[in-house]
Amino acid sequence: MSKKNKKPLRPKARRPRGFEDKSADVIRAEAKLIAAAFSVYDSHGFEPLQTPAFEYADVLGKFLPDEDRPNTGVFALRDDDEQWMSLRYDLTAPLARYVAENFDALAKPYRRYQAGSVYRNEKPGPGRFREFVQCDADSVGAPGAAADAEMIMLAADVMRAVGLKEGQYQVRVNNRKLLDGILESAGVSNTEEGAIQRLQVLRAIDKLDRLGSDGVEALLGEGREDESGDYTKGAGLAPSAIKSVLGFTTASSDDRGKTISNLEKLVGNSERGLSGCQELTDIDTILNSVGIGPDRVAFDTSIVRGLGYYTGPVFEVELLTDIKDRKGRPVQIGSIGGGGRYDDLVSRFRGQAVPATGFSFGVSRLLSALERLGALENKSRPPVFISVFDRSLLGEYFRMAEDIRAAGIRAEVYVGTGNITKQMKYADRRGAQIAIIMGEDEHARGEVTIKDLVLGAEMAKAISSNEEWKSSRPAQQSVAKDQMIKVIKSILEK
Amino acid sequence: MSKKNKKPLRPKARRPRGFEDKSADVIRAEAKLIAAAFSVYDSHGFEPLQTPAFEYADVLGKFLPDEDRPNTGVFALRDDDEQWMSLRYDLTAPLARYVAENFDALAKPYRRYQAGSVYRNEKPGPGRFREFVQCDADSVGAPGAAADAEMIMLAADVMRAVGLKEGQYQVRVNNRKLLDGILESAGVSNTEEGAIQRLQVLRAIDKLDRLGSDGVEALLGEGREDESGDYTKGAGLAPSAIKSVLGFTTASSDDRGKTISNLEKLVGNSERGLSGCQELTDIDTILNSVGIGPDRVAFDTSIVRGLGYYTGPVFEVELLTDIKDRKGRPVQIGSIGGGGRYDDLVSRFRGQAVPATGFSFGVSRLLSALERLGALENKSRPPVFISVFDRSLLGEYFRMAEDIRAAGIRAEVYVGTGNITKQMKYADRRGAQIAIIMGEDEHARGEVTIKDLVLGAEMAKAISSNEEWKSSRPAQQSVAKDQMIKVIKSILEK
Repeated sequence: MSKKNKKPLRPKARRPRGFEDKSADVIRAEAKLIAAAFSVYDSHGFEPLQTPAFEYADVLGKFLPDEDRPNTGVFALRDDDEQWMSLRYDLTAPLARYVAENFDALAKPYRRYQAGSVYRNEKPGPGRFREFVQCDADSVGAPGAAADAEMIMLAADVMRAVGLKEGQYQVRVNNRKLLDGILESAGVSNTEEGAIQRLQVLRAIDKLDRLGSDGVEALLGEGREDESGDYTKGAGLAPSAIKSVLGFTTASSDDRGKTISNLEKLVGNSERGLSGCQELTDIDTILNSVGIGPDRVAFDTSIVRGLGYYTGPVFEVELLTDIKDRKGRPVQIGSIGGGGRYDDLVSRFRGQAVPATGFSFGVSRLLSALERLGALENKSRPPVFISVFDRSLLGEYFRMAEDIRAAGIRAEVYVGTGNITKQMKYADRRGAQIAIIMGEDEHARGEVTIKDLVLGAEMAKAISSNEEWKSSRPAQQSVAKDQMIKVIKSILEK
Repeated sequence: MSKKNKKPLRPKARRPRGFEDKSADVIRAEAKLIAAAFSVYDSHGFEPLQTPAFEYADVLGKFLPDEDRPNTGVFALRDDDEQWMSLRYDLTAPLARYVAENFDALAKPYRRYQAGSVYRNEKPGPGRFREFVQCDADSVGAPGAAADAEMIMLAADVMRAVGLKEGQYQVRVNNRKLLDGILESAGVSNTEEGAIQRLQVLRAIDKLDRLGSDGVEALLGEGREDESGDYTKGAGLAPSAIKSVLGFTTASSDDRGKTISNLEKLVGNSERGLSGCQELTDIDTILNSVGIGPDRVAFDTSIVRGLGYYTGPVFEVELLTDIKDRKGRPVQIGSIGGGGRYDDLVSRFRGQAVPATGFSFGVSRLLSALERLGALENKSRPPVFISVFDRSLLGEYFRMAEDIRAAGIRAEVYVGTGNITKQMKYADRRGAQIAIIMGEDEHARGEVTIKDLVLGAEMAKAISSNEEWKSSRPAQQSVAKDQMIKVIKSILEK
């Protein structure tokens, strides 16, 4: 920099809270996950899409993931023309905008996949970032259960493609229409008041794991006082309705067909409920045809999915360990993603129904789950390290590196200025397995020295004196240059 | 959505100015470019890095690409704790922050590659977006010309990896120290005034193409009045200095060694100038060793690079057509990227010199250049289309699609609700080459109908009457199900 600038105060090198740098291993592993998912979507004829990071705030609307805070949670700023822009908080709202903007130009069903950073202006915590990558596939314009079955199948196939074995994951499917139907049969009205009641019922069911059947029963009826003395008002359902809803929570079985017939009894004559059952039947038929059994995709009435915008089938992908709990069920790592049908998201732009269904997973979340399951393959191999023993031979070193790369092996020449001790320390920190050294004498003889750094480190442990080390020079050999690649390969193959 | 919500005003589906949606073809082509570049960097032992979209504003500092507007051009907002955060405008400033933040943990030279969106809050225009993808490689901690030679070599190898032939690109290298040295020899002082003069000289040289030698000569001396009568004050150099600078602009030849010896004469006894010449010599040696001739990498004193932060070797990658201009030189598409040495960018955090050198290119810019050069490979093949002739056979259709995919061919089942006419229209809009149709009778016989849609469209042109069409049913055949894959392959291979 020129000397005209006054010396500025030194800024502190630091990141904003909740934003992370990703290491090489994580980047490579995440890229592999995304490539695996993309390959599944691509093989099914989905097309990639990329939308920008910014959308107009009114376009994103209030479809925020957290219903309780509809107006916060985004990063927003004003453009030059005073319009508010927000960074996208998911990939679904921008898709709805894209489809509405290009409606006539798109052949429908429009099926796309996309991965990209999304942004949440929330309090960060451990493993909870304000920027993270989601990977989505969606199908817009198809109202039937075939499109839902396809998304569910894709979810299961993506889990297989990223390296999970059967028994390590399960897609669990529910349908929003079922509970609606049960409540309709139980006389919960379709009015605004009924909507609040439905939400209370959903939230009560979502607490089944935590509060047990009795707690949920109380929340469905009059209400419940917890240990701290706080009182939660109940949904105020009649006893018969409570019975139906509790029956709903226990309607799932390992047999998908059995689950459907249980549900058919519960929904009674409700048209909406019966339509929900028919959709599950259609999904079951397609899954059976392609050989996806209940171990990979189950029907499970406990699946709620927080998002308010779902209108039909919903599903979550649970990752499982082979550790069993007291009841003999596999211990859950938890949901790494999910999806479902949302028929109203595009219609808000167009004033006409545009059916849609999709699947989304968090890439980091899946990656850390895979790590816990031990389902991650090993890391990238460090490059062969070519030390600079004699600066006048730099050109030779670069030529040797080219030769090694031409054999498909990563290679680097030391481009720093340290002496040979410093260079070997660098090679060690880089995790290099092989170092190549060539001085002027060797060059004149057409030879190079190849060191196996891993073997060398092992042997060093067994050698007691410096003198012994120097005289024996273990794990290092002088070879003719035209044998170099062969020797490198044989060391790497060990 | 529930009915409780008041019907909102319909938002208009639109994007903020200067932000784009990317189409499937562009996404695939860009991903291929990035993968090709990454593969080159990876083979040289560089490691991937990802930094977040946001950085603290003081961390990004004033190292904006456009020196004339140091405080504008970024998207910034205030975090909850009142600190200003900005979206990154390039990948270099975040790298400097990353290296400074993790200085002791990093083995140096630290060599990383990264691709990602960068954001410029500027007036958008045709082909000028406010969000675009850059692809960078940098080497931090190596002061010597070997690191620069490596970056230049990488730039040339990336161009080859993305599919450019020799003669379609040229990396053009200059060194900031040369002009500094020439001006030093010519008595331009090293003071603040001298710095302004150097900047004026750089800008004058940058106008050589547009103004010619006479115009530049005027700008180096007293100044120049343009056609509109506007007067630009000159750098005020003495005649002998002007002669040296003009000599510098014409010092390049096709022979790299010859160029260096021309430059050695011009820099005289200036230490800085001689150091610049020595660096070019070192770079030349390494390039020669790995067989990179002047057709791929040339020394060119007209390369300026706008950025103020460069301190040594600088280079640009020019894409060339085989169309020749009047002087027999290839017509230039222009620079698609470049780089150079910037030894002060990390030191602003640490107060100690941290040498660095890098290469960056704009992915969209390279892609559109490749399109103009006809160097892009053909597009992704659309999926085989399986129509839904009979809804009761949906499961069968999905199973057939699985079979086709298992043979490595993209396939999709129609998940919409249109009739067969609508379905074939959809297949057509999707660009499908093959459609599969199977009704109940065929299913009972174990057969499917395979339509070659491309051939069918051709034949339709030659057929005059509807009757003839219906009776001959061209480009369509009924085959046994176990022959389906074979027939599909034979059609696709045509």
